[in-house]
Amino acid sequence: MTTKIILDTDPGIDDAMAILFAEASPAIELVGLTTVYGNADIDISTRNALYLKQRFGFQCDVAKGSSQPLQRPPVGASVAVHGENGFGDVAIEAPTISADPRPAHQYIIDTVAASPGEVTLVAVGPLTNLAMALKHAPEITKLVKEVVIMGGAFGTNGHTGNVTPFAEANVHDDPHAADIVFTADWPVTVIGLDVTHEAFFSNDYIDTLRDTCGDVGEFMWDISRFYLDFYKSRMGVDGCFVHDPSAIAYVIDPSLFEMRQGAVRVVCDGPAEGLTLQKYKDTKHKTDDWADFRAQNVAVKVNDQALLDLYLDTITSYSD
Amino acid sequence: MTTKIILDTDPGIDDAMAILFAEASPAIELVGLTTVYGNADIDISTRNALYLKQRFGFQCDVAKGSSQPLQRPPVGASVAVHGENGFGDVAIEAPTISADPRPAHQYIIDTVAASPGEVTLVAVGPLTNLAMALKHAPEITKLVKEVVIMGGAFGTNGHTGNVTPFAEANVHDDPHAADIVFTADWPVTVIGLDVTHEAFFSNDYIDTLRDTCGDVGEFMWDISRFYLDFYKSRMGVDGCFVHDPSAIAYVIDPSLFEMRQGAVRVVCDGPAEGLTLQKYKDTKHKTDDWADFRAQNVAVKVNDQALLDLYLDTITSYSD
Repeated sequence: MTTKIILDTDPGIDDAMAILFAEASPAIELVGLTTVYGNADIDISTRNALYLKQRFGFQCDVAKGSSQPLQRPPVGASVAVHGENGFGDVAIEAPTISADPRPAHQYIIDTVAASPGEVTLVAVGPLTNLAMALKHAPEITKLVKEVVIMGGAFGTNGHTGNVTPFAEANVHDDPHAADIVFTADWPVTVIGLDVTHEAFFSNDYIDTLRDTCGDVGEFMWDISRFYLDFYKSRMGVDGCFVHDPSAIAYVIDPSLFEMRQGAVRVVCDGPAEGLTLQKYKDTKHKTDDWADFRAQNVAVKVNDQALLDLYLDTITSYSD
Repeated sequence: MTTKIILDTDPGIDDAMAILFAEASPAIELVGLTTVYGNADIDISTRNALYLKQRFGFQCDVAKGSSQPLQRPPVGASVAVHGENGFGDVAIEAPTISADPRPAHQYIIDTVAASPGEVTLVAVGPLTNLAMALKHAPEITKLVKEVVIMGGAFGTNGHTGNVTPFAEANVHDDPHAADIVFTADWPVTVIGLDVTHEAFFSNDYIDTLRDTCGDVGEFMWDISRFYLDFYKSRMGVDGCFVHDPSAIAYVIDPSLFEMRQGAVRVVCDGPAEGLTLQKYKDTKHKTDDWADFRAQNVAVKVNDQALLDLYLDTITSYSD
């Protein structure tokens, strides 16, 4: 069975790794890429999405989304991680194709409504577009198949934040949007640092991608030089964690992950701004701002070796 | 060696258990009780402190403290847990002695200044008095010996909040005050739900207190009927967790606890209001609102059997 997805993304190096993974997988029909600020400014992330579509011949739509968070002041692009151009400062040609005329949230609303129950929204950037889609068309909660988010950090396996001691970057970029998305009455699966920090692309693994996955492998190797330098200098490791591709891996094979159920909220200001919290216990409390919300799935364990195998197997199809 | 302490308290049933423990211990000199709203309103908690002093012949001072939190709207007394009168609705006579004329925060400032380096502040209620003492006399950070807090919940051992899914009552009552106290440049040890929910006074244990600890044992048994009913009806357990006495146990014998070091902050609003977070890892972050603050000690493990033994041994001295 093939799952139709709209991939909401801020490419971004690991975004490119996720997009190319989704496009290559026979289990996924990549219907559209919707762009958002985050790893890069919105004009850059949109250009990068169009570039990938044109260079690698995707059939999907590209729709340009939000340039800034709903309420908080913008954090600014992650240039230290993804470079000034979002692709590790590897020079890329300007694409000659254009985005869909609709803003991303409208594209999401229309596409979900056109195929009720069939479209999974996969978001691997700040959640502003999804929150705006909910605001403009609350009925989409009943029309999507599932919502899969790369974001958050719940403290399991000792994994807390990355951009702050307790916040993960995508949620920290727009905590208000994240709280709207997590508390909406639709089925959300959250792939956070609890599991993405448990899966690791070593330098050798990325060399193998280059050597066995044709033009796509070479492109991923090229753009990941900057990213790997960041990991080396910041964390002293020879490789990178598997963030955005993990959300795609979940869509292809949910059995790679172990889930915990419970309502999810986001801290929207103060020192812990962007912290995600899941109420996974059944206890009753005098005050409970989780009680009125649907239980969502938070990934707490991953079969990392199987995930790496799935990624390589899937990307290898580009060598055909 | 005897440690001089000022015990900041909102009696409260487990507060009474902690006060009687401190008074009985040869390791502690109970210099003063400072009162605060929390388990009961300030007039009731002050009356209860005076009652204990008079009935059991304490030599310590009693000073009346804050009636409400620094900034947030008052949560209201915990009458469901401690009864309308703070002592499980056991009728008690009005004390005929009076409190010190100074407000609690001034009493704390004066007493600490009079014995530099000798006084440990032990707080087992909302932290308003301590925050006010810091505000009026910041130099006390250099004059106290140690600050020991019963409060907070850091999620270790699976222990999250009690009054909300993520907040412990004392911190939730005044999160702004707690953040001031935890981030001040003095040595703080935090005894939170992570350990107090690991130590349990069974009904049988409390029966033993009654049978072996004279008038004090009988008093503790009497006032704990209401408290134990709360535990039974709310959590289905035959006994109660050891909250406030655990802070006193730490003063007597720190080796009962295992500690984790790192700066502590408090979430001051939103759904996680009152959540305590310790940055216990050394990682660097783009934004870090913990970085400028002193590493404090958070208890993450307790030798619960040794704590129960210490409590019983100490309280048994009242039977002499």
